Amino acid sequence: MNREQGYKGTDSTGFSRDADVHAQSYINKDGSFNVYKKGQVKLLKDLYQYMLMVGPMRFLGIILIYFLCVNFMYGTAYYMMGMDNFTIPSTGEEMSDFFNCVFFSFQTFSTLGYGHISPITMIANVVSVFEMFTGMVSLALLAGLVYARFSRPNTRLLFSNNFLVTPHRGKDSLQFRFVNKRKTVLNDVHVRVMVAFTESKDGKLFREFHRLQLQMDNIMFFPLTWTTVHLIDEKSIFYGMTPEEIEAKSPEILIRVRAFSEQFNQHIHANFSYSYDEWIWNAKFEKAFELLPEGKFFIDIHDVHNYVTLPKFDYSEGLSRRARS
Amino acid sequence: MNREQGYKGTDSTGFSRDADVHAQSYINKDGSFNVYKKGQVKLLKDLYQYMLMVGPMRFLGIILIYFLCVNFMYGTAYYMMGMDNFTIPSTGEEMSDFFNCVFFSFQTFSTLGYGHISPITMIANVVSVFEMFTGMVSLALLAGLVYARFSRPNTRLLFSNNFLVTPHRGKDSLQFRFVNKRKTVLNDVHVRVMVAFTESKDGKLFREFHRLQLQMDNIMFFPLTWTTVHLIDEKSIFYGMTPEEIEAKSPEILIRVRAFSEQFNQHIHANFSYSYDEWIWNAKFEKAFELLPEGKFFIDIHDVHNYVTLPKFDYSEGLSRRARS
Amino acid sequence: MNREQGYKGTDSTGFSRDADVHAQSYINKDGSFNVYKKGQVKLLKDLYQYMLMVGPMRFLGIILIYFLCVNFMYGTAYYMMGMDNFTIPSTGEEMSDFFNCVFFSFQTFSTLGYGHISPITMIANVVSVFEMFTGMVSLALLAGLVYARFSRPNTRLLFSNNFLVTPHRGKDSLQFRFVNKRKTVLNDVHVRVMVAFTESKDGKLFREFHRLQLQMDNIMFFPLTWTTVHLIDEKSIFYGMTPEEIEAKSPEILIRVRAFSEQFNQHIHANFSYSYDEWIWNAKFEKAFELLPEGKFFIDIHDVHNYVTLPKFDYSEGLSRRARS
Amino acid sequence: MNREQGYKGTDSTGFSRDADVHAQSYINKDGSFNVYKKGQVKLLKDLYQYMLMVGPMRFLGIILIYFLCVNFMYGTAYYMMGMDNFTIPSTGEEMSDFFNCVFFSFQTFSTLGYGHISPITMIANVVSVFEMFTGMVSLALLAGLVYARFSRPNTRLLFSNNFLVTPHRGKDSLQFRFVNKRKTVLNDVHVRVMVAFTESKDGKLFREFHRLQLQMDNIMFFPLTWTTVHLIDEKSIFYGMTPEEIEAKSPEILIRVRAFSEQFNQHIHANFSYSYDEWIWNAKFEKAFELLPEGKFFIDIHDVHNYVTLPKFDYSEGLSRRARS
Repeated sequence: MNREQGYKGTDSTGFSRDADVHAQSYINKDGSFNVYKKGQVKLLKDLYQYMLMVGPMRFLGIILIYFLCVNFMYGTAYYMMGMDNFTIPSTGEEMSDFFNCVFFSFQTFSTLGYGHISPITMIANVVSVFEMFTGMVSLALLAGLVYARFSRPNTRLLFSNNFLVTPHRGKDSLQFRFVNKRKTVLNDVHVRVMVAFTESKDGKLFREFHRLQLQMDNIMFFPLTWTTVHLIDEKSIFYGMTPEEIEAKSPEILIRVRAFSEQFNQHIHANFSYSYDEWIWNAKFEKAFELLPEGKFFIDIHDVHNYVTLPKFDYSEGLSRRARS
Repeated sequence: MNREQGYKGTDSTGFSRDADVHAQSYINKDGSFNVYKKGQVKLLKDLYQYMLMVGPMRFLGIILIYFLCVNFMYGTAYYMMGMDNFTIPSTGEEMSDFFNCVFFSFQTFSTLGYGHISPITMIANVVSVFEMFTGMVSLALLAGLVYARFSRPNTRLLFSNNFLVTPHRGKDSLQFRFVNKRKTVLNDVHVRVMVAFTESKDGKLFREFHRLQLQMDNIMFFPLTWTTVHLIDEKSIFYGMTPEEIEAKSPEILIRVRAFSEQFNQHIHANFSYSYDEWIWNAKFEKAFELLPEGKFFIDIHDVHNYVTLPKFDYSEGLSRRARS
Repeated sequence: MNREQGYKGTDSTGFSRDADVHAQSYINKDGSFNVYKKGQVKLLKDLYQYMLMVGPMRFLGIILIYFLCVNFMYGTAYYMMGMDNFTIPSTGEEMSDFFNCVFFSFQTFSTLGYGHISPITMIANVVSVFEMFTGMVSLALLAGLVYARFSRPNTRLLFSNNFLVTPHRGKDSLQFRFVNKRKTVLNDVHVRVMVAFTESKDGKLFREFHRLQLQMDNIMFFPLTWTTVHLIDEKSIFYGMTPEEIEAKSPEILIRVRAFSEQFNQHIHANFSYSYDEWIWNAKFEKAFELLPEGKFFIDIHDVHNYVTLPKFDYSEGLSRRARS
Repeated sequence: MNREQGYKGTDSTGFSRDADVHAQSYINKDGSFNVYKKGQVKLLKDLYQYMLMVGPMRFLGIILIYFLCVNFMYGTAYYMMGMDNFTIPSTGEEMSDFFNCVFFSFQTFSTLGYGHISPITMIANVVSVFEMFTGMVSLALLAGLVYARFSRPNTRLLFSNNFLVTPHRGKDSLQFRFVNKRKTVLNDVHVRVMVAFTESKDGKLFREFHRLQLQMDNIMFFPLTWTTVHLIDEKSIFYGMTPEEIEAKSPEILIRVRAFSEQFNQHIHANFSYSYDEWIWNAKFEKAFELLPEGKFFIDIHDVHNYVTLPKFDYSEGLSRRARS
């Protein structure tokens, strides 16, 4: 059973509730956490993680640099043995001999083996055996990396720039909106939302976390946009709060979305957060899609940010205290 | 908690409820959405997605075209350097020299390296090094693509052509049926069904979504067919509706199936929809399988469509209002 | 919500409830279904499935046969061109020339390319280019197949040979037991059990399905054995049934187990079934493990079958009707 | 439905409740079980499992040994045929000829094929064909192994050395703490905790298992540490127990954690246990992280063990019986 709802005062959220220094935010705009860790174990897998995350051009670049470095190393080793170890005679020029060795190295590493240069002595053969081994292992590593990069779902959600206070069913509500930035189809989307308050008690600052109940926290299909709505009713932590009271608590809205990616046949996850700077009072989202004459829906994903401000409204009685039309 | 049941009037289903223009349907017959998106980010991964989706012959064809193009490119580069850069002398014929270069390129790209043609100058060697690199990376990409295609569950469900209104337990019910088209075994099947109505309010058309409760929404084993039944009792949105009222709302039945594929050890998903054209009033599905004398079940999957029409019945009082035998 | 419990009379279990002919059983002892399907689409993926399922020696054998066949085919093609197309002169002997072509083919397919035989004409070069392509694609396919075989969890559960009627807490209970046959660690095990009855109504035979509630249907850790217990209380379908009544319904116990494999980081599933022949009345399982003096548990997995028969007991009043000691 | 809570006296936990000999513990400190199994089927997949588990240097070492062994075997076979089978003439020296054969083997296995040594007879060609096959299959196996190693989530949790009895909300509570040792991000963490008691009944020792309810058993985000709290209220099995009573039952705390690894897009699991030696009475965990002036959180993961002992307290009335301040 999930007991996250409404807890406060414990540090079990994974975030600290002490707040002597004012943290910028818990979740950065790219979904990562605002945390430094010490004492973590460094591992080859961190390098692997890095190779998964870098952009495709940088990935190819790193692979190419590795390919060149390894082969220059082996090439240097062959050159230091002397040209007597190979079927090709010395050209008499140092540079030329060196490059012949380097090219022989590339031909060995890639298991190409034209054969116009071949090793004839014991030592040259032994080193070339290790180079073949290095080449085969490198190819296997490369194939593994490439597949791992391919199979990672790359779905990105685009969240609205702003977090709106919108009239809804005669009350106030808090709303944000998001859309799928990729062509991949997402379905069966689940959203969880929390708010982190920074409150002062006895001159010390404390953090408090509250789960925000949503009107709907799961949708079956997600072809267009989803406007997530927290209705401010009597059970909401925001019920009756004035804008000043809310600002004083410097709220951070913490969002976690899970969706099923049809193409990757995997669940994908996204984290996002809104600081108080991004709240817009008394506004509502504009429709972000239209129905084309031929019966298809059309959506420009950047319209997810669009909202219209509503006529001025007096919130001084507190949220949802004064009936809205 | 899932709060999808019975909501209406919000655009949070991911589908629009505005319907000034009459949309053909939300879900196309192949399970995709009837939506155009603008502003999406184009990515290498979209190419990857394409390579996952194309048929096997087209896949092989694209790979072959890539293989030929890359090698003609490198071959042209070698030819432009001149034959002096290689161990093989010029034949004196341009075409012949050009093809020697192209074949050398293939031998380099595939890391074959017969060696009767080999690079002897700096420039030829350098270009061949890059071609080796291209070859190794291409092989790794190919291995990744092939595995990704293999590991995608290819399960397809065959849904009955029609959506039936069938008497059931003295009431009316809505039924459809599906079967597994593949040899792979599916178990632990879950079904969710919604109906989308297009209704007129104040001269404007609106969409409304309702979840349909099923008699059973999960089965442990799925060796044969599954007839999914929505019983029209007092809680059903269809209770008391006449055929005319239903047609006026142009209902679209939206279906999402999740099943566990034993061979792929993954969950697979399928979306399907029925428009009102596909409704059959007062009919029931025929048995789609039989028990062979040797004690095995036999099923012809195309029999999933078969139904028999029942004696004429008067629905003018509304669904489930008049007792059925 | 799962509404499988207690349903009867519908064909929505995926199994037929008509039983004019007496089916052997629904689930075979290897966990597969006793079903023939017609009209299924044949696919390359079925070949892929086959290559995943065959034993390792047969797998290697098929790969080897493919390797030999493809190369003899290309070798024959080269031979039919004539030896003038290659750097090696004809030996004058047909057989010898033919095998030179075949070996050249192997050297090309594997991208080995010793080079003492090389293609020198257009046609020989073009065919060798296609053979390189075949070789690279085959290697990629092989790598994909090998990885797919590796990554399939191979966990097998060993179920007790018999299904016992055992006194439990003053009542009767139905019990079976299973153990993990592999070294891989399984945790978080879930079990679901149904019984299929074959009953006669108006001279026709019908199937009926009932879910059996278990004392415990989930365990956190599964290091030893798990004895699954269905207590026959007033809510059980078996309550008050005599052995004769049960036999007349020829019950088939259908079992589905899901467990989490720690090494494969995947859920694994197993299906099993017991026919009435395998019931043992009034017996209980023997302990299948012991605690070694050094404080380790010891288990012989074949002891999972062991049970002891209890003193004769009169079940004629019906199961759980007479108090047990 | 999970019915693990509060059961006792059955052996269905997977662990034995008989305890004539005193077992050290159920779960070892590395998360494995304290169990020997007999009769398990040995499989090639166990070798595969081993290759997944060994450290990276040992992995490379085993691959290298395999590479050397296979090639020396084939090299010996070529040498036994005699040098007449190859394009290179005998050197007259046995050792030299032998190594030429071995190096030829390496050039064939890796599909390098320099070509200065090539097979010219039937038998040499046939053996080299099998070596090519061995080489291609080995490369595919290597690629599969490498990818399987890569894609295994390597997340490790660091649990506090001690299990604390800590005052909490005027009562007593049981607490432990853990942190993510890796750079990978974990979210959506679920914890389940059980206690295993060893109790004496009629001179025989029995095991009893109880689920411990947690104040929170799921957190959305896990950037820092999580202190898991079992509050000892009236419903707790520990309510009113004195330290002596608890020690007499030699409790083992069994813990299972599931978390979602964002980088690997997979759930990871961890098992842990505390014996009574590791209990600390009347202490509380020290804060393990701080907020840096620039607004980032800082955590040294080894601080997860740190606690402070509280002023002496008299537990003789039993846990949570005397109000705490």
